[in-house]
Amino acid sequence: MEIISTTKKMQEHADSVRRLGKTIGLVPTMGFLHEGHLSLMREARKRTEHLVVSIFVNPTQFGPGEDFDAYPRAFERDAARAEKEGVDVIFAPVETELYTKEFQTYVVLEKIPKHLCGISRPTHFRGVATVVAKLFNIVKPDTAVFGRKDYQQFVLIRRMAIDLNFDIEIVGFPTVRESDGLAMSSRNSYLTPEQRRSALSLYRSLIEGRKLVKSGIKNSSRIIDSASKLINSHKETDIDYISICDPETLVEMEIIDRPAIMALAVKVGKTRLIDNMMLNPSEGMTDDPSAY
Amino acid sequence: MEIISTTKKMQEHADSVRRLGKTIGLVPTMGFLHEGHLSLMREARKRTEHLVVSIFVNPTQFGPGEDFDAYPRAFERDAARAEKEGVDVIFAPVETELYTKEFQTYVVLEKIPKHLCGISRPTHFRGVATVVAKLFNIVKPDTAVFGRKDYQQFVLIRRMAIDLNFDIEIVGFPTVRESDGLAMSSRNSYLTPEQRRSALSLYRSLIEGRKLVKSGIKNSSRIIDSASKLINSHKETDIDYISICDPETLVEMEIIDRPAIMALAVKVGKTRLIDNMMLNPSEGMTDDPSAY
Repeated sequence: MEIISTTKKMQEHADSVRRLGKTIGLVPTMGFLHEGHLSLMREARKRTEHLVVSIFVNPTQFGPGEDFDAYPRAFERDAARAEKEGVDVIFAPVETELYTKEFQTYVVLEKIPKHLCGISRPTHFRGVATVVAKLFNIVKPDTAVFGRKDYQQFVLIRRMAIDLNFDIEIVGFPTVRESDGLAMSSRNSYLTPEQRRSALSLYRSLIEGRKLVKSGIKNSSRIIDSASKLINSHKETDIDYISICDPETLVEMEIIDRPAIMALAVKVGKTRLIDNMMLNPSEGMTDDPSAY
Repeated sequence: MEIISTTKKMQEHADSVRRLGKTIGLVPTMGFLHEGHLSLMREARKRTEHLVVSIFVNPTQFGPGEDFDAYPRAFERDAARAEKEGVDVIFAPVETELYTKEFQTYVVLEKIPKHLCGISRPTHFRGVATVVAKLFNIVKPDTAVFGRKDYQQFVLIRRMAIDLNFDIEIVGFPTVRESDGLAMSSRNSYLTPEQRRSALSLYRSLIEGRKLVKSGIKNSSRIIDSASKLINSHKETDIDYISICDPETLVEMEIIDRPAIMALAVKVGKTRLIDNMMLNPSEGMTDDPSAY
């Protein structure tokens, strides 16, 4: 496994791989790799011949007062985990390599960021779209794999890739969960044992929502009310949003008369957690990727 | 010469050229090709082995009330001229190929568009940066050649390519002029014979500015005043701006104590024309590319 830290070397490496006729897979991460990330690597490995994982805590997707400085970093452990998964290259640039003093170009989407997390994090998705466009131009992948845990990020990147004609297959991989259902996230490391118990209410409220849809309830507000009550009954929880929305546009749906995404963001203590599931009125709720 | 109209075919073609180890040159145009465009093609031809010219009148860079519908189009003549220059591929998509109904992603620069033409055309450079990013991803060039007549566009694209890490050499080619000095432009075709005479005042005011700098004048406002008087003495002229500014940032310079760009935009009748020249206080003004 090779570790590359400059844009120029990464582009030269990508060119040399492509000249050999090999396909490149990219898994962009902010590091602190967990089983969720590893499953994305395995998916990319299956689809491509040369696997690149980027590790970069991207400053432009953190707002003022968010956890950029506190974000957990563990490069040595990440490198060992990546190597074990058969990763060919880790691309790990320093901040000044990607953002020079003169930097002024952003990729912005007009609609998708106006929903869900974009409301309380108004510059977040501009930062995400921009850094992913940069990584696409640096790593030159054929396929890039993203987790559906960050569902809004996934649909944003898929839309950006279509709109800017990136010749890259965008894959969304199902959320990987702890054995009790908590969606895996690097931010789970912030949680105290008591907060960890409260954090499970996100998953439980999604499962409760699924049951309600299965029982024939089509009214989003009833499902959202039930989820709110469940989450608020746990300590240290503060709901940012609970939304039932169109899986592509993220526009809210009052009536669940077709597949919908139920997505939520909850602060547990100081830690902001997100989760989502597909609601399908004909089958109940599912995490199965074929349903997306 | 091949004419390709779909994104998918163009990307497949680019991949096949690259697999042969050949370099690709791109000259993006809005068609109605004149000697200025042809000189860009010759420059790209010199630098690369496979030459692609795109022809697309890009709607997103025209504002409301601008000349999108009137913009001159002459595809058959353009194709003949391109073929004569040894162009390998014309990429000529229809509008719906590049902008679907769901399109919502733009490339925006925070500083460069706040100067010169960006003031009276507030969405123009967003459209330019976006369509050029799209063309880069569709044509996959090693080198792209732009005219310095559209000076602000050139520095914008150069900045965008650096900021988004496009692995593409951006070349700015000197302005090609008619024998009397008028900068070549597809929009010159709108001019009546009398307006054509007035249009020459743009070039003459730049030459006059050069003489003043050569004579030792360093005060931008004196040069701008002189240019204003010269242009206003011609019929049907209406100055949008005359600016003397930093060649990279386009920030106005009050004192010409280092190389500066003198740039102007003037409406002649209903036709908006632009031109620019480098002012160099140590050598007078030059159009020589090595001076940029």
